[in-house]
Amino acid sequence: MTAQREAEDVDLRHHGDAEVGGGLADFAVNVRTGTPPAWLAARIAESMADLAAYPDPRPARQAVARRHGRSAEEVLLTAGAAEAFVLLARVLEPRRAAVVHPQFTEPEAALRAAGHEVARVVLGKDFTLDPAAVPDDADLVMVGNPTNPTSVLHPASAVAALARPGRTVVVDEAFMDCVPGEPESLATRLPSGIVVVRSLTKTWGLAGLRAGYLLADPHLVARLAEAQPLWAVSTPALVAIEACSSPPAVAEAEAWAAELAVERDRLAAELTARGLYVVPEARASFLCLRVPDALGIRALLRQRGYAVRRGDTFPGLGPDWLRIAVRGRTANDALLEVLRDLGI
Amino acid sequence: MTAQREAEDVDLRHHGDAEVGGGLADFAVNVRTGTPPAWLAARIAESMADLAAYPDPRPARQAVARRHGRSAEEVLLTAGAAEAFVLLARVLEPRRAAVVHPQFTEPEAALRAAGHEVARVVLGKDFTLDPAAVPDDADLVMVGNPTNPTSVLHPASAVAALARPGRTVVVDEAFMDCVPGEPESLATRLPSGIVVVRSLTKTWGLAGLRAGYLLADPHLVARLAEAQPLWAVSTPALVAIEACSSPPAVAEAEAWAAELAVERDRLAAELTARGLYVVPEARASFLCLRVPDALGIRALLRQRGYAVRRGDTFPGLGPDWLRIAVRGRTANDALLEVLRDLGI
Repeated sequence: MTAQREAEDVDLRHHGDAEVGGGLADFAVNVRTGTPPAWLAARIAESMADLAAYPDPRPARQAVARRHGRSAEEVLLTAGAAEAFVLLARVLEPRRAAVVHPQFTEPEAALRAAGHEVARVVLGKDFTLDPAAVPDDADLVMVGNPTNPTSVLHPASAVAALARPGRTVVVDEAFMDCVPGEPESLATRLPSGIVVVRSLTKTWGLAGLRAGYLLADPHLVARLAEAQPLWAVSTPALVAIEACSSPPAVAEAEAWAAELAVERDRLAAELTARGLYVVPEARASFLCLRVPDALGIRALLRQRGYAVRRGDTFPGLGPDWLRIAVRGRTANDALLEVLRDLGI
Repeated sequence: MTAQREAEDVDLRHHGDAEVGGGLADFAVNVRTGTPPAWLAARIAESMADLAAYPDPRPARQAVARRHGRSAEEVLLTAGAAEAFVLLARVLEPRRAAVVHPQFTEPEAALRAAGHEVARVVLGKDFTLDPAAVPDDADLVMVGNPTNPTSVLHPASAVAALARPGRTVVVDEAFMDCVPGEPESLATRLPSGIVVVRSLTKTWGLAGLRAGYLLADPHLVARLAEAQPLWAVSTPALVAIEACSSPPAVAEAEAWAAELAVERDRLAAELTARGLYVVPEARASFLCLRVPDALGIRALLRQRGYAVRRGDTFPGLGPDWLRIAVRGRTANDALLEVLRDLGI
């Protein structure tokens, strides 16, 4: 299958936000419910007083650097992780780009929009990362950790093992703050040749604000900044980035991640007990599951008022896959009840 | 002089926001003071309740289309005009790009960052637009109207006369809403081959929010959208764009523009009466003036607590030029008084 034909076989630009609306209970979008918290919303609202001034990214950049123990020169603030992927796709000039699937589809979409061919590396059983599966000559590798949509957390050592001279490895850690303590994050270590992309969207409920950043060596950060529009990140987004990088905010996210883990594991166990294959060792805020005629079940769920994320638009999954966001216990129980009504 | 050497001769990335701070009275940044108005700040603050959802650009896009009498397919919303210039520089593949100077320096900076050489067309006496001065073979022309930093408003007919088959003309109308009735705007007419870039930054005091748009033929809009990061414009910016495109908001801006004109013309007349050359027929929210040793005067003004914009970083101006934002009468009188103390 050629790269071009692969690009046409699924809609890489389909995302969970297209699945919700119309009063449906949202199990499709991976944004934490009940967010942003009141203290954060108030902080952002205060920034309204400064909107007439051009954004000054320096304090937020410094705060991110401190949060990960890096220097400010290793930080590029972006209008969401989506902008980071576009900048990387434009500035890097890979001879051979490889994307590890299943994963969030924007990195591949951005590479293709920038005119690059993309080799897809589809992971095998339980979506375990095998560094040897990546073509030797790939000089750009994109991988998610923990991975959307599989919820699999790769060991930091496996991700780091992808690095080699002449290759850039981009790790999408948009969901890493779902993992208490972030033991497998490369943000703090930042080995040579590794770029870490982060987002505030999911944990803090700021999808509408466009707030993210990447960590990379200062030389690459400078090249990416040169390609970025001037004043790319808005003042409210900068205020949010700075606030969410503070030690109390990081501690709050960690406490939430610990709660999430309990509920996620309960939901996974219940679905597994019903005979479904749930991708094991889920570590993010969603579950990925295989069920015959998933699209039919998705349609029935929509009739009952529940939106779940179709899996067939993810390369490496297919029509028998669904992604389900983990919500609070009551909401999850309601979904389980409806699934039981449908014979699942 | 080669294009490369020209690019090195001034700092194209120097802007007014770098001239303010430290308690200086701001005559350097072209953002209206006392903005955003309370009703608009409140509208934007309300959008905080929706930040957890991904941005939906459709209502704002429709509102902009209605405001200019275009179709939604002719509208691309952008994170400020700066993003529009970057997208145009990336997507268009000019064989020969020409930038009409003096003008806002980001269009040229964006073209150079995208790897294009740029031919500078420097306007002559009183910065009148002469379409014949643009090289015949230029297939991309960038021009401002009214122009930052000269405040000159070119006739719509002169701008439209730049268009021809195989050429794209990008008109930066970021300050067009300073002109009551906008008689020279091409936004509503949008002749073939013309792209109009607009901004909410200056009139509405939203520099920190990153809110702008461009108008172009649907085919080009689709190509630019493909190159744009997903969810490029934040929810608060979308709310602002929609609100500022409403008929009452347009009327409010027009009333302000009429007030501004009176004060601007008074300030210009006073400076001219003192023997300075003020670029005649100023129509935007600032004045451009030539005064010997402008950089020295700028330094003395800073000592007195006043920030004005240096003119020497604009190609086509030089060390004898300053740009002064028009403020309210009291503030302007204070500046005039300090200038008199300096012997001007």
